[in-house]
Amino acid sequence: MPDKSFVEKIFNNDRRTVARSISIVESDSKASEELLKEIYFKVGNAYRIGITGPPGAGKSTITNQLTKFYRAQNKRIGIIAVDPTSPFTGGALLGDRVRMSDIGQDEGVFIRSMATRGSLGGLSKKANDAADILDAAGYDLILMETVGVGQSELDIAEAADTTVVVLVPESGDAVQAMKAGLMEIADFFVVNKSDRPGAQQAVSALKTILMMRDHNASSWMPNILTSTASENKGIAEIAEEIKRHFEFLKENNKLILKREHRTKIRIKEIVEQKIRKKLWNEIGNNSLNSSLEKVVLGNLSPYHIADEIIENFKNQF
Amino acid sequence: MPDKSFVEKIFNNDRRTVARSISIVESDSKASEELLKEIYFKVGNAYRIGITGPPGAGKSTITNQLTKFYRAQNKRIGIIAVDPTSPFTGGALLGDRVRMSDIGQDEGVFIRSMATRGSLGGLSKKANDAADILDAAGYDLILMETVGVGQSELDIAEAADTTVVVLVPESGDAVQAMKAGLMEIADFFVVNKSDRPGAQQAVSALKTILMMRDHNASSWMPNILTSTASENKGIAEIAEEIKRHFEFLKENNKLILKREHRTKIRIKEIVEQKIRKKLWNEIGNNSLNSSLEKVVLGNLSPYHIADEIIENFKNQF
Repeated sequence: MPDKSFVEKIFNNDRRTVARSISIVESDSKASEELLKEIYFKVGNAYRIGITGPPGAGKSTITNQLTKFYRAQNKRIGIIAVDPTSPFTGGALLGDRVRMSDIGQDEGVFIRSMATRGSLGGLSKKANDAADILDAAGYDLILMETVGVGQSELDIAEAADTTVVVLVPESGDAVQAMKAGLMEIADFFVVNKSDRPGAQQAVSALKTILMMRDHNASSWMPNILTSTASENKGIAEIAEEIKRHFEFLKENNKLILKREHRTKIRIKEIVEQKIRKKLWNEIGNNSLNSSLEKVVLGNLSPYHIADEIIENFKNQF
Repeated sequence: MPDKSFVEKIFNNDRRTVARSISIVESDSKASEELLKEIYFKVGNAYRIGITGPPGAGKSTITNQLTKFYRAQNKRIGIIAVDPTSPFTGGALLGDRVRMSDIGQDEGVFIRSMATRGSLGGLSKKANDAADILDAAGYDLILMETVGVGQSELDIAEAADTTVVVLVPESGDAVQAMKAGLMEIADFFVVNKSDRPGAQQAVSALKTILMMRDHNASSWMPNILTSTASENKGIAEIAEEIKRHFEFLKENNKLILKREHRTKIRIKEIVEQKIRKKLWNEIGNNSLNSSLEKVVLGNLSPYHIADEIIENFKNQF
């Protein structure tokens, strides 16, 4: 049980305590769960923004510039940067994240990188948990940044109230985005590095693809913005579009529904993870390992062994 | 319970029965499990080859040419072509797979496309199940082809004895492959369309990346082959490399270990899926849905609700 003063320190945004708390939720221990249960009544005030897109699109730059924009309005900003890693090597692919020192030193900004190591399912759970800590610590906006490879951007979209997909003008990016499922998660698009050739074509290609989708008058239609984040161009417009989407969700009672949906996925994940942990304890793993040879030799099907394992689990559950 | 004559027809490779059996395992019903339990003692003779890579690399062409190559040796070939679909729209991305009629009409070839619809975890389970059917029906080699987006190629690598990663010479493909985790799953690479400019550079880039990895004398070092599959160039060499890898696995007792590992993952998946099904029945879903509002309003944490759901599950399990 975390002591009261520890929890109070989170609520007072004591930076060392917040940092330690995120480490606790990352470790995914019993302490993590106890901590999250203690702080929950303070969670729900922060607005969560997902920023995703292919490598090199400029997500970090946009995140940094947005942060400075919001800081000028005196909003407190939490940043969670998720680095998906290969499920095989566990190595981080994005390299070092060098954050600009001007925002890193700001007391109103909290930056945290998270690696995914192994299960991608675990990523969204931990990113959600970390966002809860920052939420309870009183950050107004939480920017969750992830590179759009594999599953991670879909997880981030589940965790965010508004999802921004960042692309670059290079031809084919729009098509790749469509293939990667980014079209379905984007609340709006930003074509960054729009000083490069092809920016207008990229916008047109996106528009064409978006128009092909089902759409009705009452639903949200994703806009396509342009920016040159390195020169701070287009940042105010991004912030404005985030606000417009937030207001759309609120007016249509969709924010609650969206958060309920997120909560549903999250609870399912927690329940399943807990059951998996019970299932694959020493007994479960031993009975699994001792059965493999029989299956490979064709003596029993995997389904026979699965039945046995479930029966054993029932008896010890 | 499938009747004996149905199962016998699978073993005799009655094509309609094999096709129906794969539909049964795709449907993921109770009948699927019963069928797989009945045929299992005939499973384990086929060698399973995974073929993956980015869209447009020429995987289908290589699969078709390899099939013709093996048919000339009188080997019977099963082909499972996996189309990953967006988890949001459920739409197939690869478009129609038009198989060359010369192999499609061949009695010694069985071709089946599978879409993934929704859960990617489900894909590897169903592809494994379908491969078991073809295995029991006496196909000597099973070619499992999937496009390398997201998780599907990792699932296919788990299901295969030998995994071939197909790339094209275009610059950056090697780097993309590394990012997508394809480096770790490749037993060897094929740079296809090697008549295009840049083929030798692509081979060099791959070599450089492979050399950076951990490697010791006793382990398998992935080779890099080139092909122009549309002109049937390099196909015999691909078949030769598959054979060389098969012999390496056999000589080093690694084939059994690899298959045991695959079986382990598979049993875990079956067990977890069965438990998920029990968990999210009507009672589980109702208790989940009725709790969402409490969580969103900050009255209870997702962890509190998860505990409640697990407690209920325990009582009815």
